Amino acid sequence: MNNSVIRFILGNVVFFLGLFLLLPTLVAVFYGEDVWVWYLVVSIPCLVLGLISILNKPKNFTFYLKEGFFCTGISWVLLSAVGALPLYLTGEIPHYIDALFEAVSGFTTTGASIIDNVELLSRASIFWRSFSHLIGGMGVLVFLLTVIPLSGGEGSQFNLMKAESPGPSVGKLVPKLKNTAQMLYFIYLGLTFLEFILLLISGLTPFEAINTAFATAGTGGFGMYSDSIGGYSVASQWIVATFMFIFGINFNFYYYILFHHARDAFRMEEVRMYAFLTFGSIAVITLNTLSMSQGLFDALTHAAFQVTSIQSSTGFSTVDFNQWPQLSRTVLVILMFIGACAGSTGGGMKVSRFVLMGKSVHKELVSYIHPHSVKKTLMDGKTVDHETVRSNNVFFATFILVFFISALCLSLENLDFPTVFTAIIATMSNIGPGLSMVGPASNFAFFSDFSKIVLIIDMLAGRLELFPILILFHPNIWKDLFTKRNIPNPKYAGKLWNKK
Amino acid sequence: MNNSVIRFILGNVVFFLGLFLLLPTLVAVFYGEDVWVWYLVVSIPCLVLGLISILNKPKNFTFYLKEGFFCTGISWVLLSAVGALPLYLTGEIPHYIDALFEAVSGFTTTGASIIDNVELLSRASIFWRSFSHLIGGMGVLVFLLTVIPLSGGEGSQFNLMKAESPGPSVGKLVPKLKNTAQMLYFIYLGLTFLEFILLLISGLTPFEAINTAFATAGTGGFGMYSDSIGGYSVASQWIVATFMFIFGINFNFYYYILFHHARDAFRMEEVRMYAFLTFGSIAVITLNTLSMSQGLFDALTHAAFQVTSIQSSTGFSTVDFNQWPQLSRTVLVILMFIGACAGSTGGGMKVSRFVLMGKSVHKELVSYIHPHSVKKTLMDGKTVDHETVRSNNVFFATFILVFFISALCLSLENLDFPTVFTAIIATMSNIGPGLSMVGPASNFAFFSDFSKIVLIIDMLAGRLELFPILILFHPNIWKDLFTKRNIPNPKYAGKLWNKK
Repeated sequence: MNNSVIRFILGNVVFFLGLFLLLPTLVAVFYGEDVWVWYLVVSIPCLVLGLISILNKPKNFTFYLKEGFFCTGISWVLLSAVGALPLYLTGEIPHYIDALFEAVSGFTTTGASIIDNVELLSRASIFWRSFSHLIGGMGVLVFLLTVIPLSGGEGSQFNLMKAESPGPSVGKLVPKLKNTAQMLYFIYLGLTFLEFILLLISGLTPFEAINTAFATAGTGGFGMYSDSIGGYSVASQWIVATFMFIFGINFNFYYYILFHHARDAFRMEEVRMYAFLTFGSIAVITLNTLSMSQGLFDALTHAAFQVTSIQSSTGFSTVDFNQWPQLSRTVLVILMFIGACAGSTGGGMKVSRFVLMGKSVHKELVSYIHPHSVKKTLMDGKTVDHETVRSNNVFFATFILVFFISALCLSLENLDFPTVFTAIIATMSNIGPGLSMVGPASNFAFFSDFSKIVLIIDMLAGRLELFPILILFHPNIWKDLFTKRNIPNPKYAGKLWNKK
Repeated sequence: MNNSVIRFILGNVVFFLGLFLLLPTLVAVFYGEDVWVWYLVVSIPCLVLGLISILNKPKNFTFYLKEGFFCTGISWVLLSAVGALPLYLTGEIPHYIDALFEAVSGFTTTGASIIDNVELLSRASIFWRSFSHLIGGMGVLVFLLTVIPLSGGEGSQFNLMKAESPGPSVGKLVPKLKNTAQMLYFIYLGLTFLEFILLLISGLTPFEAINTAFATAGTGGFGMYSDSIGGYSVASQWIVATFMFIFGINFNFYYYILFHHARDAFRMEEVRMYAFLTFGSIAVITLNTLSMSQGLFDALTHAAFQVTSIQSSTGFSTVDFNQWPQLSRTVLVILMFIGACAGSTGGGMKVSRFVLMGKSVHKELVSYIHPHSVKKTLMDGKTVDHETVRSNNVFFATFILVFFISALCLSLENLDFPTVFTAIIATMSNIGPGLSMVGPASNFAFFSDFSKIVLIIDMLAGRLELFPILILFHPNIWKDLFTKRNIPNPKYAGKLWNKK
């Protein structure tokens, strides 16, 4: 492995983490809170260590997919481990595993909390939690690609982006990958700003508006109040619901609309299926909960909010949907598995994976009826290559495997079935609340440390789509790291992003 | 489609069903029960109609996989629909959908019952329920292959066997398929007889022994008493547990031991994994339930019985495992998904599918670490061809899809989460009892007719490994049937079993 480039990238991650930590420091100073000192205490060593690492530039910038995956996995572990420190040092979360859980939940945009009473947190810490959603939503390495000069060929950069970006395949919007990353961040921050303005207009305070906008943008879901968004006005709730829907859409959609043919945007099969699932689920749940609501509009508001919240994997809530009838709960659990679009900031297995799965099931069925028809799998009018379909299927299998193993681990605590089951899916899909004891009205504090660690791994594995985290459990990757074998040859830099 | 051969095969199915129905008629006469008349009333038309159909032999015996799948699907629907009639006509199950549920549960070897008080049933009906397990376990079409002259080439026969036999691929044990089918039935009935004898020795009455042996052989699970096997002696329980384990093993294992090199038998990866899962689960559950048992032996007995019962998909119970701690329940639920070996009489997704899945996940992980290593997937030392891996993955996807759709349908009734969830897996894997309201101490009577029909489809789809049932929902298959297009050409008979 190319250890020097890994060190360089990790140095960058730590340096920018140091910069990011200055923001909550400023927030604390602004509101006159004395926690600013702890944010600064963590920030300064990050800046110093990061800078040393960055100035010591590697000669060979080339790296394979292996380095990309390893780097991504380690970066996220590091980010969370250090990002948790201020929460722990300020004494707001007195137990480090809890602080780590909260930080991982923030960066992975899960939004599952172990905090009983969010109102007691300092404003700096509330801001830090929301801001971690913003960083984690689009990805810290994608952010690095936009700002740092990562030579080593497009291939190397692609290996980094592929590991962090959600979805079965990463497309380049524009020829240069750096420009693609900048474009994504431009759309991302633009939409966040728009939501912020609209929330201000709807009557939120600037601090509420900025935190809510950050948490929506990353499809995170950390709220500022114990009742999440329940206390906001109906207008604010509809704005948040709309933006949860928006941030769950594949960002290629906005790129097409802004810089391309808008017609291509509306032809995207994944986006159409996503919209269909959202509106279909809203309709079903509205009807199913009508009798327990104050009229049609009330039922519709709650249904729309919870559906967009769960499907986009945000996890805000305006109502305790654990009290809903079983049909509505089943719809929500299925949406938890499916999740948002690939190439969005949302989590879950992604709509496109399910579309692809549905297509291969249908193809199999047809092949029994017409054995001689060779049908290609099409997506957005283009043939999906065999390798994508294969790796899509392997992803499902891996997801199920991780799910079962987690279920066994969590079952060591004697909890009820829906708690175990939905706690795992809510963390693996980076949603936040589940059902029963992890429902919207509760939190994750009651789990044992062991279960919390399992859920932390699930959140990271879910956010990075399994393999960048699973790879860390394989002994060979560490053997490679310490023996310094297999250093990539810069000659082949251009070809490295292709796995085979 | 070759309609004449379909009619011929269905004729055979109905004829043999008529013959089978004479057995409970005799049981009723023997015990002096007046229900014999109803069994005879259903039997005679079956014999007459079947005979007419058989005597009218088709000229062209060739059929494709399509005909094989269609025939299998329809045969099982027919078998269940007619097999339910006596239970309904005797008045013992006054509602036809209930009788159908019970019959489907019998033939698919699920063993889920809608009967509150089994002790009230006539002996003829008890025998008929157990006997349906025996027929369904190895498969009625496999049975036909052993007795009727199905010319039309090996390919045609293979298409029939492939559709009905469980597992990702069907192997021929001996060159001629007819002999393979006979060999399977020889092993099957031999083991059943052995269990019968051992149960007699352990103190059961002949009627108890024969019914229990039938229900174990098919891995069905219908009991004669409301407490299932709980009232039998510990010796009898251990005999049943051992045979549940035995009938969940791939029958190739016995073939190798009896007629081949025994060493090959013990090298079968699937069987080793099956044994590992069984013994591992027994160990975990024994320790987990130790504190609520009367000593180690008691805990071991119950653990061994429930594990072999669930993993082999039999569904007998000696204890209400719904009361067990969550870890034990989670282990059982995972075993429900995994199920028994391919090529056994057991249900579930099959151990070999999970082994194959695990291998492709590991291969994927290694491909990120060593991108240039081309690793083949091996099973029992042989390379698994790409098509098997692909169709294995599609099977998983289809299973999940059917699971989710069923969950939505069942959620229309406002039941709790574990009930909905485990009722579906218990029927799709042909186990019988699940957790919560469908636990071992309860039954399926409380479901609405709609839910029962969904579960009936799940049982059939689970037993026939999805596609022979799903194909019946595709309009093209019915179009083909009525337009009589695509009649297979006998010239290609030898090649037809290959899908591509």
